[in-house]
Amino acid sequence: MDPVTIVLVLSVLGMFYVRKLIKDLTRHTEGPDSMKEIATYIREGSDAFLYRELKTISLFTVLISALLWLTIGWQTAVSFVFGAVLSALAAYVGMKVSTWANVRVAANALEGGKEAGVMAYKGGAVTGLCLVAMSLIGITSLYKWFGTPVPLAGFGFGASLSAVFLQLGGGIFTKAADVGADLAGKIEKNLPEDDPRNPAVIADLVGDNVGDCAGRGTDLFESFSDNIIATMILGLSFVFMFGNQAVIFPLLVQAVGLVATIVALLFLRRNKDILKTIYISFGMSALVNLVGLYWLATNYMNDPLLFLAGAIGLLTSIVVAGTVLYYTDSRFKPTREVGESSLRGTGVLLIQGMAYGLESAVAPMLFIGAVIWGVNALFGGGIYGLYGIASAALGILSMTGIIMAADTFGPIADNADGIGELSGNEAKVGKVTDQLDAAGNTTKATTKGFAMACALMTSITMLFAYLRELATDAGVNLMNIVVNLAHPVTVVAIFFGAVLPFWFSALAIKAVGKTADQIVEEVRRQWKENKDILKGKAKPDYARCVDISTKAALRAMILPAVLAVIMPIVAGVIFGPLALAAYLVAVNTVAPLLALFMYNAGGSWDNAKKYVSVKYKAKYPEAYKAAVAGDTLGDPLKDTAGPSLHVLVKLQSIVAITLLPLFL
Amino acid sequence: MDPVTIVLVLSVLGMFYVRKLIKDLTRHTEGPDSMKEIATYIREGSDAFLYRELKTISLFTVLISALLWLTIGWQTAVSFVFGAVLSALAAYVGMKVSTWANVRVAANALEGGKEAGVMAYKGGAVTGLCLVAMSLIGITSLYKWFGTPVPLAGFGFGASLSAVFLQLGGGIFTKAADVGADLAGKIEKNLPEDDPRNPAVIADLVGDNVGDCAGRGTDLFESFSDNIIATMILGLSFVFMFGNQAVIFPLLVQAVGLVATIVALLFLRRNKDILKTIYISFGMSALVNLVGLYWLATNYMNDPLLFLAGAIGLLTSIVVAGTVLYYTDSRFKPTREVGESSLRGTGVLLIQGMAYGLESAVAPMLFIGAVIWGVNALFGGGIYGLYGIASAALGILSMTGIIMAADTFGPIADNADGIGELSGNEAKVGKVTDQLDAAGNTTKATTKGFAMACALMTSITMLFAYLRELATDAGVNLMNIVVNLAHPVTVVAIFFGAVLPFWFSALAIKAVGKTADQIVEEVRRQWKENKDILKGKAKPDYARCVDISTKAALRAMILPAVLAVIMPIVAGVIFGPLALAAYLVAVNTVAPLLALFMYNAGGSWDNAKKYVSVKYKAKYPEAYKAAVAGDTLGDPLKDTAGPSLHVLVKLQSIVAITLLPLFL
Repeated sequence: MDPVTIVLVLSVLGMFYVRKLIKDLTRHTEGPDSMKEIATYIREGSDAFLYRELKTISLFTVLISALLWLTIGWQTAVSFVFGAVLSALAAYVGMKVSTWANVRVAANALEGGKEAGVMAYKGGAVTGLCLVAMSLIGITSLYKWFGTPVPLAGFGFGASLSAVFLQLGGGIFTKAADVGADLAGKIEKNLPEDDPRNPAVIADLVGDNVGDCAGRGTDLFESFSDNIIATMILGLSFVFMFGNQAVIFPLLVQAVGLVATIVALLFLRRNKDILKTIYISFGMSALVNLVGLYWLATNYMNDPLLFLAGAIGLLTSIVVAGTVLYYTDSRFKPTREVGESSLRGTGVLLIQGMAYGLESAVAPMLFIGAVIWGVNALFGGGIYGLYGIASAALGILSMTGIIMAADTFGPIADNADGIGELSGNEAKVGKVTDQLDAAGNTTKATTKGFAMACALMTSITMLFAYLRELATDAGVNLMNIVVNLAHPVTVVAIFFGAVLPFWFSALAIKAVGKTADQIVEEVRRQWKENKDILKGKAKPDYARCVDISTKAALRAMILPAVLAVIMPIVAGVIFGPLALAAYLVAVNTVAPLLALFMYNAGGSWDNAKKYVSVKYKAKYPEAYKAAVAGDTLGDPLKDTAGPSLHVLVKLQSIVAITLLPLFL
Repeated sequence: MDPVTIVLVLSVLGMFYVRKLIKDLTRHTEGPDSMKEIATYIREGSDAFLYRELKTISLFTVLISALLWLTIGWQTAVSFVFGAVLSALAAYVGMKVSTWANVRVAANALEGGKEAGVMAYKGGAVTGLCLVAMSLIGITSLYKWFGTPVPLAGFGFGASLSAVFLQLGGGIFTKAADVGADLAGKIEKNLPEDDPRNPAVIADLVGDNVGDCAGRGTDLFESFSDNIIATMILGLSFVFMFGNQAVIFPLLVQAVGLVATIVALLFLRRNKDILKTIYISFGMSALVNLVGLYWLATNYMNDPLLFLAGAIGLLTSIVVAGTVLYYTDSRFKPTREVGESSLRGTGVLLIQGMAYGLESAVAPMLFIGAVIWGVNALFGGGIYGLYGIASAALGILSMTGIIMAADTFGPIADNADGIGELSGNEAKVGKVTDQLDAAGNTTKATTKGFAMACALMTSITMLFAYLRELATDAGVNLMNIVVNLAHPVTVVAIFFGAVLPFWFSALAIKAVGKTADQIVEEVRRQWKENKDILKGKAKPDYARCVDISTKAALRAMILPAVLAVIMPIVAGVIFGPLALAAYLVAVNTVAPLLALFMYNAGGSWDNAKKYVSVKYKAKYPEAYKAAVAGDTLGDPLKDTAGPSLHVLVKLQSIVAITLLPLFL
């Protein structure tokens, strides 16, 4: 069998393992009827949201693929459809399984919770494996069909389109519901989190599934696919050196990544502390990846340097995740200081969080810059230097499956906790799920840092893939392409690109504010019109809040998503394909800085709130209020605008690569 | 007389007019002893701060000028000392006169306040004229001495050094005092603004002088000087075309600017509304500038296009100032919405302000980008296109004198209001000074937008001046210089530059938070140890709060200032002079975006607070508290980090130009 077929077969086998994971999961009980009822609400809400979301995506998919067919070619159009559909499908399966897992985890917690942690993690692994396997299935089939990776840029574009809608829509939904529920419940009426009397509480739980689970899933699907495709395109430059091997190498690396994920899951052991289980599985997956990568580098590519680049990539993701942890965990100085400053009022708490948030963007960017510089030098510069940088990105992304499992673990645990509370079983269930929820918050910091490192390294790889395509079309060597910054038009293109992340984030954040307002109004209305709700004698109308969030989120996501697609086209048409590269560099630089700031400021305020809640809430209620204000500001930053910026970055490059023929 | 001598003579005459303005001012009475006493406190505090600030600047000036002498040449070193000293001197004179004006304005208000507005404006004009005249005196003398503009980069560097210290130190001082006074006074004890029982209140008033007046003065001195010098250097490219005229043209344009300022002041008429007076003087100054520019362009340079470029520059500053006004004034939608959202809690108010702040950076950057693009095309591209862009910047900066007058008007009016209140004359004085204060807040929006447009256009001009120097040293034509973005090292240099504004702002904001903490502690201590203070029976120890702010601000400014000087040197050494240009572009792009966001979010929260205070404070105290939290977060953004970023941008380019021989 040729190597590409092997990757395809492995990926299909991966999907069989997914089926096994799902079967193992559904064998567990869903618990008492009270739990089933809540779970049904969540499922219905999530389905309703995703159904309408997919309708919008389908519409755009048809429209754009038709345009691609007419302007670029049928292969690109077909790839586009594949990318959009597979990405959405992976997200759909992942989210569906999460809504099956949450109630089972809660039910298991009711019985003592021995299995609960591992169940939640394996539930999350469905999303992780699905996205890796489906992406590989799509890319290998198309590559086998077309025989060249160039039209596969359309696949990346399709994946980006799904991602921008799902991440944005999901992000707006989840934070609008969260902020709305908090404002009306926690702040106005002093209700605890997940109180059944709060009509927005189900919307909040639905949000965890559609935002964190489906949204992040498509984000990583996009990074994963874009990175493979961009590296394949760069690999075309080495046909004289390695034959087709440099093109196929990225596929093999990620097939190893798939196997590594499965191995880590097969050897999963239950520990008292679920975090230990998760970290051991990370280590196991990394080990298998490194061994596989070493074998591929030395035996398939005959260059151990490629192993070194991949290992450096892995290290990068650990460092970036480490800085996220440092800035957002209250065990460390920044967030502790933010928490302590709550005693001196809301203003000081906000100032401190803002300052640390801005600072937190510095170290990761400098580190990634140093890695790009170092790897390039290590590979002796030139085109091979660029291939080295791409390989570093491959190294990071080989961990996608297992990282995504840990990421989806979070919302499952969070949902289980909510189901326990809403079904009136908080006493028993809470003991288990609170711990899981806390573990989920810690892994989130890791996975966000990972997603960030992926997005940035991928987009740099894509920049060079774009330049390679440009060089090929111009009939020159990639190294002879000149994008001259010493020219006013290039500088203006940089301005143009740098503006986009600010604009896009502003729209996303504003959407959360507006939708949250509507939720607050609705919650107040329900309480006013039926006094029994607050007394706990009547059930609130949960579905209405879900419905409002859904409609508002879907409406609000259109403008920023369209802006994100239109801007690179406008830039390409006005400034031409060379200055478009400058535009891409600007987006690639500004968006990650802004995203890091938003993530970390938001994460820090979130954890500072928890810190204050434990330490000062009872004695200084004003301090707690200050901390809640910070958390609320941080919500749309860290869970709507921040993650959407990742998607934005990659979308810019992939649009540029796909539509390059139009700008020439 | 040769044109350069004419400019020198005009500038010296300008200083005589400054003397006349001061004499006119000091003829007025300082009012009752109670006012004199408060004014003395403010003066002593301002002097003490500036004295220590100047000591620090002197130390760095001696050190850096010695290094410049050794590495670059004595001419650059001498220019550096000139720049640092003249900039500091202009700021010193301006601030000194402000502290003479404030009490006289208050005294005049006590007598009905017929003259108060014009007095405050003319007091501000001293700062405006001083900086224009002193900059021109310095530049023309050095140019006459050396016969070439190249070593004058040292003058710009010196001015930048003064500016970074004065703007940062002043900005930290003023906001730490402001935030500290508010937190302890307004929020904890519900005292009104400027209440004499608040020990931090004098520090707050001192802050207006050292931050807004001296700080902004050095910022504009720097833009003004840098822009002239950079354009002169670019002008060297046209010796074949215009002889030395293209080098001297910027000096002549700004001499016209000086005359225009004096004409506007000579024809100043008192109006019921001081804003009308100010706007008429803006119009008058603009008119004289345009006429003068037209004459110079057609008769001296024989190219009316240069007039057009200058006029477009003027238009740019109006547009940028207009967007600032739109986003920060509660008559318009954004700030009104932010204000209204106070009813739905602190979180929503913060989210809205954040979203509009991010959005507000978009339009000005796009507009300035369009202007650069358009002017370059208008001049047919090439080096002459760059000269056209520089001329547009000259057009903006020809308004410096009158704009700075309006800017300094603000703190004088603010101080007068405070003096009235603290001396127990609020009833009579407030009627007049409240109006002046409100006018000051409106002009501030205009002048901030102006300072921003100046900084950005200047830094772009400087970028090309840097590239010209690089080309000259390499013995090639400027248009043949290539900074290739399609190269990993250039991309890394971009990352490196983009990180700096985040880092620098973080340090500045953190400094405000920490210093404000110390002020709050001190205020609480005084109130605790002497219960009579809060009863109004004993005087608080104002000087101690001033002293704490001074020490803390001076300590905190060192690290960011040193970072700002070191980073471009490190970038130049590591990446080389070509990639250093990419580094500069990154700073030039990211810093203005961040500054606009910070300005406008801060300004919006500030005015939203005033809006809420009038509309909702009485009925919904919680809404007012929410608005105060937003305002507090906004304070260090809009008055410390934001303005310091302007200085940072220019400092980067001027360091690069001055030290270029080291990187080759």
